[in-house]
Amino acid sequence: MDHSTDINQRHQARMERKKAFIDKKIAAADKEIGIIIVNTGNGKGKSSSGFGMVIRALGHGMKVGVVQFIKGAMSTGEETFLRRFPDEVSFHVMGEGYTWDTQDRERDTEKAQLAWQQAQEFMRDPAIGLILLDELNIALKYRYLDVHSVIADLLERPPMQHVVITGRGAPAELIAIADTVTEMAVVKHAFAAGITAQAGTEW
Amino acid sequence: MDHSTDINQRHQARMERKKAFIDKKIAAADKEIGIIIVNTGNGKGKSSSGFGMVIRALGHGMKVGVVQFIKGAMSTGEETFLRRFPDEVSFHVMGEGYTWDTQDRERDTEKAQLAWQQAQEFMRDPAIGLILLDELNIALKYRYLDVHSVIADLLERPPMQHVVITGRGAPAELIAIADTVTEMAVVKHAFAAGITAQAGTEW
Repeated sequence: MDHSTDINQRHQARMERKKAFIDKKIAAADKEIGIIIVNTGNGKGKSSSGFGMVIRALGHGMKVGVVQFIKGAMSTGEETFLRRFPDEVSFHVMGEGYTWDTQDRERDTEKAQLAWQQAQEFMRDPAIGLILLDELNIALKYRYLDVHSVIADLLERPPMQHVVITGRGAPAELIAIADTVTEMAVVKHAFAAGITAQAGTEW
Repeated sequence: MDHSTDINQRHQARMERKKAFIDKKIAAADKEIGIIIVNTGNGKGKSSSGFGMVIRALGHGMKVGVVQFIKGAMSTGEETFLRRFPDEVSFHVMGEGYTWDTQDRERDTEKAQLAWQQAQEFMRDPAIGLILLDELNIALKYRYLDVHSVIADLLERPPMQHVVITGRGAPAELIAIADTVTEMAVVKHAFAAGITAQAGTEW
């Protein structure tokens, strides 16, 4: 048996074992239910992953609701794009940018609470298959919103509705009730090498 | 001074310091250039973040090329959705699903190389502002593609073109030449709780 045949056969045997293992796990996981997904950590990709899930849901014919907390001083590429589909995506952006730009806690709290009312409206509508609550974790971290009321509302939503929540510093209470939680960790970042925030990659 | 005024004033002072710090960092980062972004790790959100960047780029009027390595047995929501915009997004899916389903190393290698030819074509076209090479890391990990040739091609692309590369197990050589690298780490996963892979969240 020559060397490359050997590699190919060992590859096949390994892949057969892997397939058997994965098939067994898939058979055991049979529940269909709306899930809560949290993307947190200091790395990139928390919001963009949420927007990737938005188009995944749209591809399956779902209706989607988006609420952006905190962000909003500058309109983003994803907002411009998704506003092309008003029958499929309801997009709500909380005004006035990051909290270190506004420096006004009372006004930020008010805006966050208005944004949460929009989220509540989406959570009362079972026709909405997926809701993205972008940067909600920041609003919770600064206590613009109370984590216990937020969780109570989340748990009362329609059973098949998925929710994606993003932002660094997800509170422990939220992680405890979430189904899937990912921590995005920085390995390296272009910004540190002097590259500015560019259209199409950062906003 | 009452308690809430005090909290609000301390918040404002903290945010002023934060804004000064961030503004200084932003002023120092002034380069505009195409960047290489790598999403790796065992957690969720690597591909979906890539697709979020696709719509971000589309919102800025960029053209986008997508090549999906490895995946492809089952069409995904993001593919269905993005195929609605053939003038804006070129979508190429390498056939036949995951390597543990095909169990044939030679055929997988051939398919991966065909998919790489598609990527090379995108990298010769400066009109394409962003390229998503989804699950490329898997094709590198199994050595369906040679990491050094892949890197040579990446470094010769048009200077303003952005590339997003996803998949667990990104090789060290690729991390070394990338601009922004994020590791998606599992904190918890719905699958472990017996919830199946569902339309709109997992595919």
